[in-house]
Amino acid sequence: MYRSRPKDKLDDHVLKFLSSIQQDQSILYYDVQGSEAHSIMLHEMGHLTSGELKKILAALEEAKQEPDKIETEGYEDIHEAIEAFVIKRAGMDAGGKMHTARSRNDQVVLDIRMKIRDDINDVCAALASLIVGLVTRAQESKRVPMPMYTHLQQAQIGTFSHFLLSYAYALMRDMERLYLVYQRVNQSPLGACAIGGSSISIDRKKTAILLGFDSIVRNSIDATSSRDAFLEYVATLAILMSTLGRIAEDFIIWSTTEFGFIELADRYSSTSSAMPQKKNPDPLELTRAKAAIITGNLVSILGIVKALPSGYSRDLQDVKPPLLGTSATTLDAIKVIDGAVRSLKINKNKMRLTLQSSW
Amino acid sequence: MYRSRPKDKLDDHVLKFLSSIQQDQSILYYDVQGSEAHSIMLHEMGHLTSGELKKILAALEEAKQEPDKIETEGYEDIHEAIEAFVIKRAGMDAGGKMHTARSRNDQVVLDIRMKIRDDINDVCAALASLIVGLVTRAQESKRVPMPMYTHLQQAQIGTFSHFLLSYAYALMRDMERLYLVYQRVNQSPLGACAIGGSSISIDRKKTAILLGFDSIVRNSIDATSSRDAFLEYVATLAILMSTLGRIAEDFIIWSTTEFGFIELADRYSSTSSAMPQKKNPDPLELTRAKAAIITGNLVSILGIVKALPSGYSRDLQDVKPPLLGTSATTLDAIKVIDGAVRSLKINKNKMRLTLQSSW
Amino acid sequence: MYRSRPKDKLDDHVLKFLSSIQQDQSILYYDVQGSEAHSIMLHEMGHLTSGELKKILAALEEAKQEPDKIETEGYEDIHEAIEAFVIKRAGMDAGGKMHTARSRNDQVVLDIRMKIRDDINDVCAALASLIVGLVTRAQESKRVPMPMYTHLQQAQIGTFSHFLLSYAYALMRDMERLYLVYQRVNQSPLGACAIGGSSISIDRKKTAILLGFDSIVRNSIDATSSRDAFLEYVATLAILMSTLGRIAEDFIIWSTTEFGFIELADRYSSTSSAMPQKKNPDPLELTRAKAAIITGNLVSILGIVKALPSGYSRDLQDVKPPLLGTSATTLDAIKVIDGAVRSLKINKNKMRLTLQSSW
Amino acid sequence: MYRSRPKDKLDDHVLKFLSSIQQDQSILYYDVQGSEAHSIMLHEMGHLTSGELKKILAALEEAKQEPDKIETEGYEDIHEAIEAFVIKRAGMDAGGKMHTARSRNDQVVLDIRMKIRDDINDVCAALASLIVGLVTRAQESKRVPMPMYTHLQQAQIGTFSHFLLSYAYALMRDMERLYLVYQRVNQSPLGACAIGGSSISIDRKKTAILLGFDSIVRNSIDATSSRDAFLEYVATLAILMSTLGRIAEDFIIWSTTEFGFIELADRYSSTSSAMPQKKNPDPLELTRAKAAIITGNLVSILGIVKALPSGYSRDLQDVKPPLLGTSATTLDAIKVIDGAVRSLKINKNKMRLTLQSSW
Repeated sequence: MYRSRPKDKLDDHVLKFLSSIQQDQSILYYDVQGSEAHSIMLHEMGHLTSGELKKILAALEEAKQEPDKIETEGYEDIHEAIEAFVIKRAGMDAGGKMHTARSRNDQVVLDIRMKIRDDINDVCAALASLIVGLVTRAQESKRVPMPMYTHLQQAQIGTFSHFLLSYAYALMRDMERLYLVYQRVNQSPLGACAIGGSSISIDRKKTAILLGFDSIVRNSIDATSSRDAFLEYVATLAILMSTLGRIAEDFIIWSTTEFGFIELADRYSSTSSAMPQKKNPDPLELTRAKAAIITGNLVSILGIVKALPSGYSRDLQDVKPPLLGTSATTLDAIKVIDGAVRSLKINKNKMRLTLQSSW
Repeated sequence: MYRSRPKDKLDDHVLKFLSSIQQDQSILYYDVQGSEAHSIMLHEMGHLTSGELKKILAALEEAKQEPDKIETEGYEDIHEAIEAFVIKRAGMDAGGKMHTARSRNDQVVLDIRMKIRDDINDVCAALASLIVGLVTRAQESKRVPMPMYTHLQQAQIGTFSHFLLSYAYALMRDMERLYLVYQRVNQSPLGACAIGGSSISIDRKKTAILLGFDSIVRNSIDATSSRDAFLEYVATLAILMSTLGRIAEDFIIWSTTEFGFIELADRYSSTSSAMPQKKNPDPLELTRAKAAIITGNLVSILGIVKALPSGYSRDLQDVKPPLLGTSATTLDAIKVIDGAVRSLKINKNKMRLTLQSSW
Repeated sequence: MYRSRPKDKLDDHVLKFLSSIQQDQSILYYDVQGSEAHSIMLHEMGHLTSGELKKILAALEEAKQEPDKIETEGYEDIHEAIEAFVIKRAGMDAGGKMHTARSRNDQVVLDIRMKIRDDINDVCAALASLIVGLVTRAQESKRVPMPMYTHLQQAQIGTFSHFLLSYAYALMRDMERLYLVYQRVNQSPLGACAIGGSSISIDRKKTAILLGFDSIVRNSIDATSSRDAFLEYVATLAILMSTLGRIAEDFIIWSTTEFGFIELADRYSSTSSAMPQKKNPDPLELTRAKAAIITGNLVSILGIVKALPSGYSRDLQDVKPPLLGTSATTLDAIKVIDGAVRSLKINKNKMRLTLQSSW
Repeated sequence: MYRSRPKDKLDDHVLKFLSSIQQDQSILYYDVQGSEAHSIMLHEMGHLTSGELKKILAALEEAKQEPDKIETEGYEDIHEAIEAFVIKRAGMDAGGKMHTARSRNDQVVLDIRMKIRDDINDVCAALASLIVGLVTRAQESKRVPMPMYTHLQQAQIGTFSHFLLSYAYALMRDMERLYLVYQRVNQSPLGACAIGGSSISIDRKKTAILLGFDSIVRNSIDATSSRDAFLEYVATLAILMSTLGRIAEDFIIWSTTEFGFIELADRYSSTSSAMPQKKNPDPLELTRAKAAIITGNLVSILGIVKALPSGYSRDLQDVKPPLLGTSATTLDAIKVIDGAVRSLKINKNKMRLTLQSSW
């Protein structure tokens, strides 16, 4: 089995401290997929019989379909838990071989790379919808004159659509960046094992192809130690969130009584019992806050890898929560801004009045 | 009731985005306590009859004893959920008055202040234990000569206890700092309401005394807008974690085969199936990583409050998760280092050999 | 002499990379003071004759009075440069003994501690002036009704003075924190030498008293390795800057044409040739930006010490620039806000009009 | 002229606070180039006569050749100072027209984009040299067996070249990223003016072509407000520095007496007078520290743009110092690692001995 203990058992509080099992739910699916590809390759290279392969695949398929059946209590991470599940289902003879020529060091990087690939697609789909929303609203408001501001002081005459399109342009660069990150993420680390590869004959390109990777990370130290592609992904989302936060800021200011240029839809605002006539831009404020949260996540990851020696260190486990959290938060925030943009009301009159009273 | 909606209902994804209900479990207890004190004060000021007070207190007591009974589904935060619970138990007539002269803006700051007070005590207790552990081990190793390093190069002769005591001194400053933070945390914001206090007669000092506060935050804008005491708390823990991370680094280096000065106890190390003779310092590596995580949390909070206008904004809700996470993580990390210190084996021979071979 | 080279000379670009000589100008004065106290102690302990002491003190006094005479070209830091200056003036026999029982490892920490002490006093003096300014303006505006905002939406009626006092309260906590930091800064590390103290008899308390320290940092590893007091200082200023940035934000919003509650004095605003009637709140915007700059400085220092082993490492040299920059920037920003507060014009009419049109 | 003052003059301390003139020296060259292209375009569009253009270009050429002649005292930034210089040389009639249809808002973004283009080329050239150095040393050490580590514990047998190539692979990704950033940087913002473009007929594509840009930033709000390309650049360097810092960490550990796998050349190490036999890896330690410094710079810039409304705000001026500092520091650090790699001595014996004593 994967991780054997030194003689003494871990104290409960140490096990809890070491365990990543809760965050691992979101990579479970990818872990199973990776194990499927790895097992098929092991079979093709002669390390697993057809019978063993079948048993393993059946167990893995069950794990994928009914993940709740996987016992997680007492395991340090999902890799252990799935291995134990497979051994229970497929027997020690077959299941025990599933991790031949593999280590959790290359496995965890594989899982996260697969997860990021899907997240990039989700984020880009949401971004595309938001950009469509912005352009749609821009089309209907291209004749709506509105003051433009520098230093938050009235500066020139523009249109509301001019602002919406400025957001769309910036977000298109974000999408472009995500597309470019994908290339560096989409390389398979599988086969690098603990750090130095395996003495057993394996076919790294085979698993890469089965899992849809463009290529492999050639150097095994690089494959298990480097996290620069993850950093690039999180930095890209931090930049994207910075743009969303600035859009939120514009909308918050414009929906004050004093500016009054837009009115948020009821379902994108809150109120309070004491002052029911108020319309508070809570979802926008939280989007603004999330930009700061993601900056913090990026700092956490940059800090974790700071001055870390080559070779897997357990520190790298803590990259997962801020990385996964960044994906989820960004996706939510894009959808919130999308909904807010599509549903907000434009107060042309207030814009016109402000322009008239301006010099 | 607390938060009434504009006409349209929130979309599910917006509600999820707005909701802090999951993080709020850890302030539930304090929220109930705060409501008890507030209700008693309302009664003493003549705003609640004895009967109403009794009903409210009974409901709150039930909430405290059996928090699982509180319905949270569909509520944006724990304040709403508890209010709804009380109204259901105590009736609209009594329960509906519980929030007289109060807002979730002063309430949430109150809850977090009470939570931090307890967390400071917990962290200090754990720190005290760790310091005792360090001093104990120092006493038994004060005759153990060991090389001292600058730039990780052998520099002078010292003792193992000299290092342990250097940690103890640093951690005592951390404890001192926490004690000082407590003073600024231990001031009651209750009664500041949304931002400008209440026109209803209340006794802010009364609730402060009931809840064990030293004094009140006098200015109501300050009470609801400022988060500097929270920042101070998180910064203090970030500094403490930085010290723990450096202790971890020393131990990681000293437990390499090459240095070999100490050996971690089995229950504070991990191994791997492929190389069962290895002893990996996983809990120490995670402690090192946690220092970076907490730095990220601090950055998140500093980022959230950056350039936030006076008056409660929903952004401030997002201060909670990094703040609460910082408390919990720091507490865990202290205990891990405490256990590691108390159980590690000192290799006097290796220290002596290194000194002999040194110039 | 202090730092002797291995055989080969440093390449120019490496020397430039290693050198801190430019940032060191601001600790030159303290370095000289520290050398004076150290030399007096060395004399009292019998390591320097009266004649040697006189020569050294004369050279140091010259260095203090005419710092421009100190050759810095080719030296890695100010400690080396001053030592070379003293040797040139006092001769190798006397000057060469000045660093007996001292290392640049304890010396640099000493210098920075002395610098921070003075900076704390300067910052507190500037803060006191700002608080006086706020209270003065508050007194004259306590009858000026003004809308209060939550979520940047009009919420309750308050007064302008209510806001000004909320700032004053927050800044008083900042001053309180600085006072508390002073205690942990004001401890002498001198005598810790490279890491393990000195075999030569010295009197650490003597130098501490001469230099105005409350006490000494007892443990020599702690004295040379720890930077927690510096982190505490920078974190405290980051929190203070966060408050200043929020004041700036309020003022920026209130001085828009749309809100129009205040008007900045000409000398605290800018304009542009194209739109001369505009009044841009540039000094406030830069104050807001500085809050982010200081957060970055704090992250730099937390990152530098992250996972640094015990004992001086050259990494610690890079703590200086962000630390010194934080002091200077904070001081400037306080003065800018002070001047802006004292000179801004309150538009009572606009406040009244807004209140009247509000529900 | 560019920036006219409101009636009152700025206080000296406010001018100092506002001024970016010192940091601007490194964009002076680009500012002049931009003005040349802009003036040529103005002439082609009929806004400047041949005579006026000649006078302006002569003055600008002088500014480029002898930048020390440009008076900077009393100016807030280099744009003002150069304009004043041109007006003095070319006369008010010609020089005063140089900024027709231009604002410092589009000008400063233009300058920084041009500066980043050159910096990317410099960084990539230095990276290429470092990669060549790594591969060269790898070729000569591919038969040098060396232990590989996970968790800093001996794990598998590898070779020294395996490590060097892992660095080379990672750095090639950094170079790839810089190449991709270049595309988004290399778009001309010129012509966006203050925020909304100009009513005067200009040819944005003409200036873009003259200055070597691939295309223009179409939307004028986007062109003056967005800083995502700058963030992307700094984030890319932060990731690169994180890799360099990890290489430095490996080398620092390997050059301890205990590991002893490599020995730094004298000119890439330091020593101390007290312990002249020590060889301290100071340049590597500073490289490690610089990684943290750059993370702080990234945080500063992310913090500055956080929640900034659309349209130029003076906050953006403070993006310059951390951005320019990041370029310079990264370039220095690459060269230091390059020199260290090429000059370090490999201790094959120590590697072999460690492998033999290992299980």
